This record gives sequence, structure tokens and C-alpha cells, in this order.
Amino acid sequence: MEKNRLEAFSDGVLAIIITIMVLELKVPEGSDLAVLKRVLPVFLTYLLSFIYVGIYWNNHHHLLMAAHKVNGAMMWANLHLLFWLSLVPFVTGWMGENHFAALPTSLYGVVLFMAAAAYFILQYCIISVSGGKDALLAKAIGQDRKGKVSQLMYAIAIPAAFWSQWLAGALYVAVAVMWLIPDKRIERVIAE
Amino acid sequence: MEKNRLEAFSDGVLAIIITIMVLELKVPEGSDLAVLKRVLPVFLTYLLSFIYVGIYWNNHHHLLMAAHKVNGAMMWANLHLLFWLSLVPFVTGWMGENHFAALPTSLYGVVLFMAAAAYFILQYCIISVSGGKDALLAKAIGQDRKGKVSQLMYAIAIPAAFWSQWLAGALYVAVAVMWLIPDKRIERVIAE
Amino acid sequence: MEKNRLEAFSDGVLAIIITIMVLELKVPEGSDLAVLKRVLPVFLTYLLSFIYVGIYWNNHHHLLMAAHKVNGAMMWANLHLLFWLSLVPFVTGWMGENHFAALPTSLYGVVLFMAAAAYFILQYCIISVSGGKDALLAKAIGQDRKGKVSQLMYAIAIPAAFWSQWLAGALYVAVAVMWLIPDKRIERVIAE
Amino acid sequence: MEKNRLEAFSDGVLAIIITIMVLELKVPEGSDLAVLKRVLPVFLTYLLSFIYVGIYWNNHHHLLMAAHKVNGAMMWANLHLLFWLSLVPFVTGWMGENHFAALPTSLYGVVLFMAAAAYFILQYCIISVSGGKDALLAKAIGQDRKGKVSQLMYAIAIPAAFWSQWLAGALYVAVAVMWLIPDKRIERVIAE
Repeated sequence: MEKNRLEAFSDGVLAIIITIMVLELKVPEGSDLAVLKRVLPVFLTYLLSFIYVGIYWNNHHHLLMAAHKVNGAMMWANLHLLFWLSLVPFVTGWMGENHFAALPTSLYGVVLFMAAAAYFILQYCIISVSGGKDALLAKAIGQDRKGKVSQLMYAIAIPAAFWSQWLAGALYVAVAVMWLIPDKRIERVIAE
Repeated sequence: MEKNRLEAFSDGVLAIIITIMVLELKVPEGSDLAVLKRVLPVFLTYLLSFIYVGIYWNNHHHLLMAAHKVNGAMMWANLHLLFWLSLVPFVTGWMGENHFAALPTSLYGVVLFMAAAAYFILQYCIISVSGGKDALLAKAIGQDRKGKVSQLMYAIAIPAAFWSQWLAGALYVAVAVMWLIPDKRIERVIAE
Repeated sequence: MEKNRLEAFSDGVLAIIITIMVLELKVPEGSDLAVLKRVLPVFLTYLLSFIYVGIYWNNHHHLLMAAHKVNGAMMWANLHLLFWLSLVPFVTGWMGENHFAALPTSLYGVVLFMAAAAYFILQYCIISVSGGKDALLAKAIGQDRKGKVSQLMYAIAIPAAFWSQWLAGALYVAVAVMWLIPDKRIERVIAE
Repeated sequence: MEKNRLEAFSDGVLAIIITIMVLELKVPEGSDLAVLKRVLPVFLTYLLSFIYVGIYWNNHHHLLMAAHKVNGAMMWANLHLLFWLSLVPFVTGWMGENHFAALPTSLYGVVLFMAAAAYFILQYCIISVSGGKDALLAKAIGQDRKGKVSQLMYAIAIPAAFWSQWLAGALYVAVAVMWLIPDKRIERVIAE
């Protein structure tokens, strides 16, 4: 029951984040192709961020499937994750409107890095409340290589943005592609 | 249970999309009739888009009634549909504020076309997860004539907007009217 | 189950409408009392509209308690109600920012009138699906005097706004006060 | 069942409030550090308000766990609480954009004070509906020292803001820190 309300609140916040981003796609004045072209970078960043929030929603969904109890630490770990994700529309808009300038592109990576760290903390809270290393979730995640590689790629992209925004952008796209497939590890272990 | 969360998230996103559109109805300066008249085209496009999102909500609702399992492909197919629908407020505002100029009117059709295609893909995912051609949903949909005619009408409206915006607009209105009646095919087959 | 999703979607839309209105309370430049004073009329209209949407939420809640089945007509009647309520933030902002000028104050009444009519239609749909005059809801509502008086007061306020905005405003406040107490008729009849 | 819808609506409104605040973090023009620095005070107030709304969500969650019945008074007490919380994005933006000027900083405290008072009223409604002084919730809360101290601190901060904004700000932060730990009193008594 408690878990239901945690899920419902998280779903609400994620649904609003994913939809509010589109407000950065401000309706332009004029109606010719040149106008549309100027909107393109904002559109592309919107697409990328939509996929990222979609990935978080998918994985959050699986993560909570493995949680049997909700405690105060989990609630705040969850709010902490939502906090970083709530900054995604801001950095998305800033990066898009400045056509992938160095600082906004780097900051985009900072927010992704912090969200990934918050996800890791939430995961840790759920594992420790469900019995530590022997918990189902702990087994399902194992070494969590995918998570660690993502963190590393963000950590590279953050300084790399000042040297080449395209490299940073490519890293963000690469991580997104890597996670497009929903995390089936948890489902598999639960089925067993 | 998984399906519930998919529905809840979709309902959240659709509720936000349908309500956020009204933000394009920007509170005008001045308080006379002339001011209200300038808001009229935005209001009319809002009305049309409200009906479209309402139709999608109704049909999405029936579509998921026929789904018994949720898998990764369905989740992404659903997010893909929500992505195109999330662009509706943008194209609605752009079309309305430019008083149905050619390019925005055409782009409105592109977004509707892509949303319809995404709906078709989601439908296909649900059918293939529930047993292919013999699935209840497959029988309910049959030849899906209504779906195909809609796609065709959008495909005509997209280029037609450059020749006559009124023809394109009439096609959008016609498709909406055609779908106003909720899709009872699924309900009927389930009842059987 | 179908009813749950109708309620969830309506709750989502009403929650967004009630919260989005506060966006019309635009953060003003400057930080002295004079600035705050200029925001005051927008604040007052926000307060009034918040109460109105709260009343609709309360009554909608009771109305659906009396519905046992959901059909296509009810879905569209419900969307129709949500459509008029979704215009509340717009007319609220327009009335507030123009310090209760005649036309916006009158239009505020038009939207309230249409929302009340839409509520009446939804009520009618639920009654006719549940067995007509003998339905529980039909008995609970009886003559629906409160509903009729509200409609009448809106109908007076709409033209009255051009003669005296304060009279129109007083009528809107009076209707809100009249409905502040949740409609217990339905609860009472259900209890019996 | 009624309680579920009250929770769902409150969760919806709180989710929107917490996410809408980030819209005050307007995407700035320019892409250098100086630009980011100007956004910093808005970001800090966003962080503080995010924590406050998170606290309210957590405690609201526990409060409703103790409610067995929903009546009209509770519904309005709940809407009253949501009303004051819905003003948080406005005062957050006003305080942040004016770099903690006296009046906005004081008004921020007024809204927090009123929200705390509304929470107290809601608590009182739930207790009186569940059997008064002997109710579980009444025992769980006891003297409600934490609540009273918070109210006192807000009451000091409101005038103090005109003398030193930093003192007022420190008081707001202190109250937030004090409540970061979810209120376990109710859980404890329910467990007994």
C-alpha cells in the first residue's frame, strides 16, 4: 500500500517532467522552414531527454518491483532521484537553445551523472532494507557493469564537452542506446 | 500490476498534454472583443487537439483492456506513442498562432500521422504478445479499416496544406468526427 | 476497473488545472509592496477559481460513486466537462490581469455556465445508464434545486458584468459559497 | 476507496507543485558561467522548496494512514492545505529572482506558516472524525512539539526577514532539516 503511493507519486512526477520539457519547444514566431530549423536543436535535445526519462521510468518500475518494504530512507532516496530528474527540462532547454555550447552540454552531463548516482543510492537503500547481499535485487544486479560504465561515460563527457561538444553528445546518445532495452535482470531473478 | 502502472503513467502524461495545451491560450493584454477575436484561432485549434487527445485516451484505454502481459517492447511502443502526442501542444500552438498557415498546418498532420503510426505499432506489439492472429485484439480489429482510412487522410492532408489549408483542416476535422464514437470493437469481442 | 481509470484521468486533469492556474500568478519584477498589490487581483481570482475547481472535484467524486457502469457517452460527457474546466485558468488570468473588466468578467461566467451545463449532462448520462428515474442518483438529486439556482445566477451574471462587474463577481462568490459544503445527497441515499 | 481518491488527487497536486517550480528556473540567454551564477539563487530556493514539498508529501502520506473515514470537512481541510502549498512555486520564484530581498523572504515564511496551520487543521479534522483524544493519531502526535516549534520559527522569521534576510533564511533551512526525518510517530503507534 505504501509502495503504491510511492510509485504513484513517482509516476506523477516523471509524467510531468517528461511532458513539461516540451514547453521548452516554444512556439516560434513566423511560419516558414527557417523558423522550424531554429527549433531543431531544441527538438533533438527534447528527443534525447524524453528517451532518458523514459529509461528512468522503465528501470524505476523494475527497481520498485523488487522492494517489499518502504522506509524513510527509501522515500528520501526516491525524492533525491526525482530532484535531479526534475532538472532535466532546464538543462535540456539550456543546451538546445544554445545549440550545444560547451557549458550547457557539460552541465547536462552533470545532471545525468547525479541522477545516475541517486538511482544507485536508491538501489542500495532497497537492497539493504530487503536483506543485504542475499537480497533478490542484489543478485539481479550483480556487478552492475552497465550502471558503472554509464557513470564512467558521463564522467568523461562532462570535461570532454569543453573540448568537443560532439564527443560529449555522442557519449550521451551512446548511454541512452545502451539502456533502451529495459533492464530484464530483475524480472529474470524474480521469475526464478 | 505492471499493466496498472503503464496505464497510470500514460493517463498522467495524457492528462498533462491535454491540460498543458491550454497554456498556449496566452492571457492577452487588453480586455475588448478585438482581443478575444485574435485568440479565436488558437482556441479552435485547442478544441480540435483536445478532441484528438481525448480520442487517443479513449482508444488507449480500450487497447490496454485487451493486453494481458506487459513486456519491454510494449513499454517503448507506448512511450513512442506518448512522444508524438506530447508534440501536439507545440504544433497546436504553432498552427493557431499563425492562423492556419501552410507549413504549421502541414506539420500538424505529420504529428497526427506519426501518432497514428505509433498507435498501430503499439497495437501490433500487444497482438503479438497475446498470441498473434488468433488473439482477441486481432479479431476485434479485423481489417482495421478505420485506422487505415485515417492514415490515408493524414497522408493527403500533409501535402494538401500547401495548396489549401482549409482542405487540410477539413480532413483533420473529418478524422476526429469519425473517431468521436469510442472504438467498441474490442469491448464487443471481450464480451463474447 | 474502467471507472477507476476514468476517475484517475479526471483527477489528473483536475489536479493539473488547479495547479496550473498558479502559473498565471507571474513572478513580478521588483520586490516592494506596490508590486505585490498589483498581483492582488490575480491572486483573488486564483482563490475563487481554486475553490470552484475544488467544488467540482468534490462533486465529481460523489457523482462517480453513483455510477456503476461506464459507457462511451459518459466518457465524452466527462471529457466535455473537463474541457470547460480546462478553460478556467485562461479566464481566471484574463479577468485578474484586467482587474475585473467587463468582458473578461462576463466570459468567466460563460465558462462557469458551460461547465455547470456539462456537469448536468454527465449527471444525466450516469442516471440514464443506471436505470433512469428510479436510479439511486436520480433520487439523490431530486429536483436539483441547487444546480438550477447556480445556472440561473451565472445566466444573470453574464450580462450583468457589463453593467456592474461587482454584481457579477458577487454572484460568482455567492454560488461558490453555496456549494462549499460537499453534496451529501448522494452519500445519504447510498447509505440508505 | 474514498480515501484512495483523496490521496491520488493530493499526490497529483503535490507532484505538479514540486515539478512546476522548476519552470521558475527559466532557461537563461547566453551560455557562460556568469549566466549560471545569476540562476544560482533561484536554484537554491528551488532546492529548499523541493525539500519542503517533499516533507509535506511524506507527512501527508503518514497522516492519511491514520484516517479511516473521509468526510466533507477533511476534504476541504485537505484542499486548504493544497492551496497554500500551491503558492510555494510563486513565493519561491519571487524570493529567488529578487536574491532574497526582505519582502519576498518574509512572504515565503507567511506561506510556510499558513501551510503549517492548514496541516494542523487537517490533522485536527482527522482526529475528531476518528474518535477525538483517544484516537490513534491523537496519541501518536501527543504534544506535537515539533509542529509547534516549526510554527514559532516561521512566526519569528516573518518579521525577522525585514531586519536580516539571512536569519529568516537560516530559520527556514533549520525547520526543513528538523523535518527531513519522516514523522515516525504515527507508524510506531499503528504498529503497536
